[in-house]
Amino acid sequence: MSGQPQPPVDQLAAATLSDAVPKHEFSDRVPIRSILARPDGGSGLAGQRARIGGWVKTGRKQGSGSFAFLEVNDGSCPMNLQVIVDAAVADLGVLVPTGTCVGLEGVLKVPPEGTKQRIELRVEEVVHVGPVDPAKYPIPKTKLTLEFLRDVVHLRPKTNTISAVARIRNALAYATHTFFQEHGFLYIHTPIITTSDCEGAGEMFQVTTLISDAEKVEKELIKNPPPSEADIEAAKLLVKEKGEVVAQLKSAKASKADITESVAELTKAKENLSKLEERFKLKPGIPQKDGKLDYGQDFFTRQAFLTVSGQLQVETYACAVSSVYTFGPTFRAEHSHTSRHLAEFWMVEPEIAFADLKDDMNCAEAYVKFLCKWLLDHCLDDMDFMAKNFDKTCIDRLRMVASTPFERISYTEAVELLVEAVKGGKQFESKVEWGVDLASEHERYLTEVKFQKPVIVYNYPKGIKAFYMRVNDDSKTVAAMDVLVPKVGELIGGSQREERFEVIRDRILEMGLPLDPYEWYLDLRRYGTVKHCGFGLGFERMLLFATGIDNIRDVIPFPRYPGRADL
Amino acid sequence: MSGQPQPPVDQLAAATLSDAVPKHEFSDRVPIRSILARPDGGSGLAGQRARIGGWVKTGRKQGSGSFAFLEVNDGSCPMNLQVIVDAAVADLGVLVPTGTCVGLEGVLKVPPEGTKQRIELRVEEVVHVGPVDPAKYPIPKTKLTLEFLRDVVHLRPKTNTISAVARIRNALAYATHTFFQEHGFLYIHTPIITTSDCEGAGEMFQVTTLISDAEKVEKELIKNPPPSEADIEAAKLLVKEKGEVVAQLKSAKASKADITESVAELTKAKENLSKLEERFKLKPGIPQKDGKLDYGQDFFTRQAFLTVSGQLQVETYACAVSSVYTFGPTFRAEHSHTSRHLAEFWMVEPEIAFADLKDDMNCAEAYVKFLCKWLLDHCLDDMDFMAKNFDKTCIDRLRMVASTPFERISYTEAVELLVEAVKGGKQFESKVEWGVDLASEHERYLTEVKFQKPVIVYNYPKGIKAFYMRVNDDSKTVAAMDVLVPKVGELIGGSQREERFEVIRDRILEMGLPLDPYEWYLDLRRYGTVKHCGFGLGFERMLLFATGIDNIRDVIPFPRYPGRADL
Repeated sequence: MSGQPQPPVDQLAAATLSDAVPKHEFSDRVPIRSILARPDGGSGLAGQRARIGGWVKTGRKQGSGSFAFLEVNDGSCPMNLQVIVDAAVADLGVLVPTGTCVGLEGVLKVPPEGTKQRIELRVEEVVHVGPVDPAKYPIPKTKLTLEFLRDVVHLRPKTNTISAVARIRNALAYATHTFFQEHGFLYIHTPIITTSDCEGAGEMFQVTTLISDAEKVEKELIKNPPPSEADIEAAKLLVKEKGEVVAQLKSAKASKADITESVAELTKAKENLSKLEERFKLKPGIPQKDGKLDYGQDFFTRQAFLTVSGQLQVETYACAVSSVYTFGPTFRAEHSHTSRHLAEFWMVEPEIAFADLKDDMNCAEAYVKFLCKWLLDHCLDDMDFMAKNFDKTCIDRLRMVASTPFERISYTEAVELLVEAVKGGKQFESKVEWGVDLASEHERYLTEVKFQKPVIVYNYPKGIKAFYMRVNDDSKTVAAMDVLVPKVGELIGGSQREERFEVIRDRILEMGLPLDPYEWYLDLRRYGTVKHCGFGLGFERMLLFATGIDNIRDVIPFPRYPGRADL
Repeated sequence: MSGQPQPPVDQLAAATLSDAVPKHEFSDRVPIRSILARPDGGSGLAGQRARIGGWVKTGRKQGSGSFAFLEVNDGSCPMNLQVIVDAAVADLGVLVPTGTCVGLEGVLKVPPEGTKQRIELRVEEVVHVGPVDPAKYPIPKTKLTLEFLRDVVHLRPKTNTISAVARIRNALAYATHTFFQEHGFLYIHTPIITTSDCEGAGEMFQVTTLISDAEKVEKELIKNPPPSEADIEAAKLLVKEKGEVVAQLKSAKASKADITESVAELTKAKENLSKLEERFKLKPGIPQKDGKLDYGQDFFTRQAFLTVSGQLQVETYACAVSSVYTFGPTFRAEHSHTSRHLAEFWMVEPEIAFADLKDDMNCAEAYVKFLCKWLLDHCLDDMDFMAKNFDKTCIDRLRMVASTPFERISYTEAVELLVEAVKGGKQFESKVEWGVDLASEHERYLTEVKFQKPVIVYNYPKGIKAFYMRVNDDSKTVAAMDVLVPKVGELIGGSQREERFEVIRDRILEMGLPLDPYEWYLDLRRYGTVKHCGFGLGFERMLLFATGIDNIRDVIPFPRYPGRADL
C-alpha cells in the first residue's frame, strides 16, 4: 500500500451523480459502513461518487508531499476508509493530523493489487475541515490506557475502543427491546425519583430542593433584610387601631362610604402584617422542624431518593397488563471503588404474570442467548476488535452461550458441589455451607470450572433473600434464581414473587420492616392477586461479559463513582 | 347475548392438546390478543383448547345461577375475551366481582348467532383465582375520573384507559428506537446525575448524600460520644512519652529488640492519636466549610444534580460516531402545577454530525410521521378506544400528520402572519412583535388555524435562544427550529449547533456565563470540529398529541410533580 503509484485525478472516470452511493437520509455523507460492510468489502461500488465525513485516524504525506493517505472513521463501523488526497486538491498539512474532521467528496476506486483495502476514495473536493493542533490534542495516535481516557471522558468516544463499546452497547440495548417486544412485553417507564425503598437496604441518593431553596432565601435576605420584631409590633398596632376605627364608625352608625373606607384600610393593614409575619419566619439555613429537617418544605413534601430498582413499581403493571419490562438507570450511593460498581448503572427488569420460577428461568435463558446471538449477527466487526485487543475468547464465549443449554441446579446442589470441590483440594477465601450466600469465587467456579457454561442456581435459603420472594413448600427456601456466566459470575438475579397476601405480610413483619410503606404493594395481593415472577439483568455486566473489558467504568458512556461525575 | 342458551360442557367436542392455541413462551397462558386480534376475530380458532389468564372486567351470573359470563382482560390488547363458566366447574360468586384474577382452561367456541363476540371460551377448569372483595376494592366498575385514579397510581393500570395509554406509550418508545436504529443512529445512555447545567437556566434537583451521611454521624455520636479535648491531650502526651523512650533507648545504644518494641509502642500511640483526632473532628449536622456547605464531602466531592437534558453530553458522541440519540428521563424542579408540566419526564434527543438545520428539520419531520404511522399500524384498537372516550379527532390527526408535508416558515414570516391575524381581528393575550418568543396561543394558531397541519418555524432571534445555537449570517438570528402540531403546540425544539470555536466562546461570554464549566464542550470545537445539529422531543407531549388526553400526569406511569411522588 505504501508508496504505491497513484494515477492523477484527471484520469479518474468522471462518474455521474446518478452513480453516487446513496447518502445518509439526514446528513451530508455516505456512512462508511455502507461502503465497507458490504460482502464485497465495497469493491462493487468502484466508479461511483461518494461524499463521506469522518475523523482522521492516521494520515501521512507520500510521494514527496504530492499526495496523502488518510484513514478516515465516522463511527458507523470499526473500519476506516482509506482516502487519497492530491496536493492540488487541498493543503495536505492541515488534513493529516490525527483527530482532524474531514468532509470529502470523490470517486470510489479499487486500489492497486497487493493492498489490504478493497476500495478507496480518490478525493476531488474537500468540503469541510475541522483542524487539530497535534501539539495540544489530548488523545494523540499513541496507545492510551483506558484509565487515562477516563480523564478525558468527553473526547474518549473518538478512540477505537470506546466507539466499539458504544456500538456494542447500542446493539445490546436494541436487542433487549426487540426481544421483549417480540414476546409481547410492554416497556414501562418506572420512576427515577422514588419515595419507596426496594429492599429496606441499599444506600440511596437523596433528591432534594431544600438546599437550593435555602440558598435562595439566604440571598434574598441579604438583599432585602427581614422585618424586626419592632416592625411586627408596629404593624400589629396599626391593625388594632384600624380595627378600633371600624368599630367606632359602626357603633356611631357612620355613613356606608366611611365604613367601607375604614374596612378597606383595616384589610390593607392586616395584609401588610401577614406579609411581614411571613417574611419574619424566613430563616437562613435549611428549614428544620422538631430538631429535624423539615421535609414538608421539600419539593415532594417528603423525603425522596433515586431508585435502586424498578421492580416493585413495574409489578403494578405486571399485575394489570401481564408481561412488562423496565429498562433504565438505577443508583447506589455505595462508596465502592471496585472495577465492578457504579453509582449510576442500567438495569433490565422484566416481570411476567401467570408465570412461575421455571418460566422465569426460561425467559432469562432465552434473553441471554438472544443477546449473544444478536451480537454475533450484528456486531461481528466490533467483536473482532475486542477479541484482538481485550479478550481472545470473547467471540467463542458468545457462541458457546448462544448455543449451549444452561445448567440448572438448586442452591443445595450447588453447595454440595462446592463442598466436594473443597474436599478435592480447591481453595476458596470464604467458607461454603448451607445457608450462606455464594461469593463471586464460588459462582465463577461453578460456571467457569465445574460446568464451563452458564449455570442457573435456584431455590436459595429464605434467610439471605428479600421479603418479596416466594416461600417454597419446604418453608426453608425461596423461589429465587441467579444466572451465572463465565467471566463475570452473576449476570441475572430473579425470583417468583410472593403472591399470597398473608405470607408476604408476615414476611415483611418477620424482617422487621414497617407495613405502612408497603401497603400499596400489599394491595397487589389484596385485589386480584396473580402468580408472577421477574428478574434483573445488570446491563453493564452484560457488556463486561460480551466485550471482555475489565473495568465497568469503561463500558458506560459517563461513569459515576465516588468522587467522580464528569460532565 | 344475554340469556342465550348454553350447551352443557360435556357436549363440547373434546379437543386434543395438539389443537391447543400456542401459549406465551414464558407463561402459563395464551395472550388474549393472540385470539382476538386475528383478522377473523378469533373464529378460526374454534374447537381449540386454550388456557388464558387475566382480570375480570365484568362478570354476571345467568340462568338462575347455573352459569356465568365473564369479560376477561389480560392487558395484551384492549379487547376482553368472553368466557362462560358453568356452576358445576367453580363457585361463580368468587369469579364475578370486577378485578378478580382468573386462570382458565377450556375450549374456544363460536358463540350463537346474533352476539357481538366472534369467539368465546367455554371453561372446563379454573386453574387460578385471585379474589376481590367488591366492598373494599378501590376501583370498582363505575366510571372513575382520571384525577381520582392519580390517588391510586398502583392500581390504575387495571383500568381500560391507563392500560391503553401504557400500550400506546410502549409502541411509541419502540417506534422511536426502531426509527433511529433503521437510520444508523447509536443509542447513547447520557448521564442522569450531572455536574453540568445545560443552559445555565432551569431549576435543578440536587443529588446528595450529605444529609444521610450527617444523619449517620449523628446517630453514631449518640451511640459512641466523641473524645474530649482532654482525651486528645492525654493521647498526645502518650505519643511524646513513647517518643522519648525511643530516643533514650537509641542514644543508650540499647538492644535491637528493645528499640523495635519501643518503636512499635510509639506507632501504636500515634495511630491511637490520629484516630481520636479524626473522631474529634466529627460534628453533628451537615458539614460546612467557610460558611458554606462542604461539597468536598459529598459523594461526588462536588455539587451534583439531575439532568435537565442529555444534549450537551450526547454531542460528545455525535462528534465521534456521527449519528446518535439519547432517550431517557430528564428533570425540572419547577413549582408548576399545570397540566403540561412534570418534574420527571422523558425526552428523545437525536444529534447528527455532518448535518445542518435543513437535515434537522427533515429528520424531525420523518420521525414524527413515522411515530404516527406506527400507531396507525400497531395500535389501532387502542386508538379507537381513545377516539371513543377522549378525542374523536385523534385518529384523523395521526393520519393527517403521517401523510401531510409539514409547512416550513421562518420566525420572521411567522411573526408577519400573526401580526396580520391581529389586524384581521384575531385576539391574543400576549403581544406579537419581532424579537419576542412565540407563546403557546401563537403556536397553536399557526398550526391549528392558519395552516391546519404541522408547522416548522425556523431561524429565531438570537436573543431568545440558547448559547449553543448556530448564529446565522444575518448575525440577528440563530439556526433554531420548533415543530408545532395541532392539539399540543410545540412538540420538538432543535437547532444546528454552533461549531465555530471563536463564535461559541464569545456567545458564552456575551451571555454572562463562565467559560470554565464549558471547557469540555469547547474542546469539541477545538479538536476536529464538525457541523452538527439535533433536537429534543418531549415524549409525554407526543403522548398527549396521540391520545388526546388533557393532563400530562395521566400519560406517564408514575407522575412526579410538586408535592407528589407516590411509590
